[in-house]
Amino acid sequence: MKTRLSLPALDPATVTSKTTSTYPREEWRDELGRRSKQALGDALGLQNFGVNLARLEPGAASALRHWHTRQDEFVYVLEGELTLVTEAGEQILLAGDCAGFPAGREDGHRLINRSDAPAVYLEVGDRLPGDRAHYPDVDLEARADRSPYRYFHTDGSAY
Amino acid sequence: MKTRLSLPALDPATVTSKTTSTYPREEWRDELGRRSKQALGDALGLQNFGVNLARLEPGAASALRHWHTRQDEFVYVLEGELTLVTEAGEQILLAGDCAGFPAGREDGHRLINRSDAPAVYLEVGDRLPGDRAHYPDVDLEARADRSPYRYFHTDGSAY
Repeated sequence: MKTRLSLPALDPATVTSKTTSTYPREEWRDELGRRSKQALGDALGLQNFGVNLARLEPGAASALRHWHTRQDEFVYVLEGELTLVTEAGEQILLAGDCAGFPAGREDGHRLINRSDAPAVYLEVGDRLPGDRAHYPDVDLEARADRSPYRYFHTDGSAY
Repeated sequence: MKTRLSLPALDPATVTSKTTSTYPREEWRDELGRRSKQALGDALGLQNFGVNLARLEPGAASALRHWHTRQDEFVYVLEGELTLVTEAGEQILLAGDCAGFPAGREDGHRLINRSDAPAVYLEVGDRLPGDRAHYPDVDLEARADRSPYRYFHTDGSAY
């Protein structure tokens, strides 16, 4: 695609969109639905944190509910309506709203698009080493320093 | 302000806006013009990186032109039109465009609002220790691990 910008500037429309998941069970991958992500930070040459432009079609989810031991996460809604699910319940995020998940806070979270229109958001996560992701609803843990994650059962055995 | 959201979700409208600069010379502070920032990441309890919702009124600038030795920076334009100034010249960023400044790339950058309407953007920067900021256009360097920065002349003496 032709672009009017050159690095260090970037038109996100020129960045490849990824729809795959690395979860080790098909039912978990299927549960994400029509989720796509463009790795803007990687395209810009950033290494200390990742920035994705993520899009959830109706019914899609950002992830299985999870929390990180060492890495912070941030999301900012650009378009549409997203339901944030945490231990405390559900909240609706609209365009212009944000959310943050500090490292080590044991509150599994995820976003689900329960609306009938696409939703678009930015997600940021740092890449501090030694990170683990815990998934309280399923038999899953991850060594989550950076992609691709390595997945384990909660008893420590590998998938 | 009453808010419909509770942590880990946040309505940015509830976050205090800051208009001050810590630059050690009044002319540099004045050069920023009507710039305001809301520290969303801090309000969400994030520590590994900062996220600001920044607003530049016409004529305002994000910063003096600078680059970081260890920290990555990312900006995403939400509203309006911004001019990105780097060594290579100028580019216009519109809503939906982004830019990234990898640590150690010696290309001083800043954003200026040369339009006649406000411009709003998100800025993200990590907080790796030992960071320095260099300002190629002026007699200024900073120990920039985290706010407040400590400022020095290029000969190493303190302001």
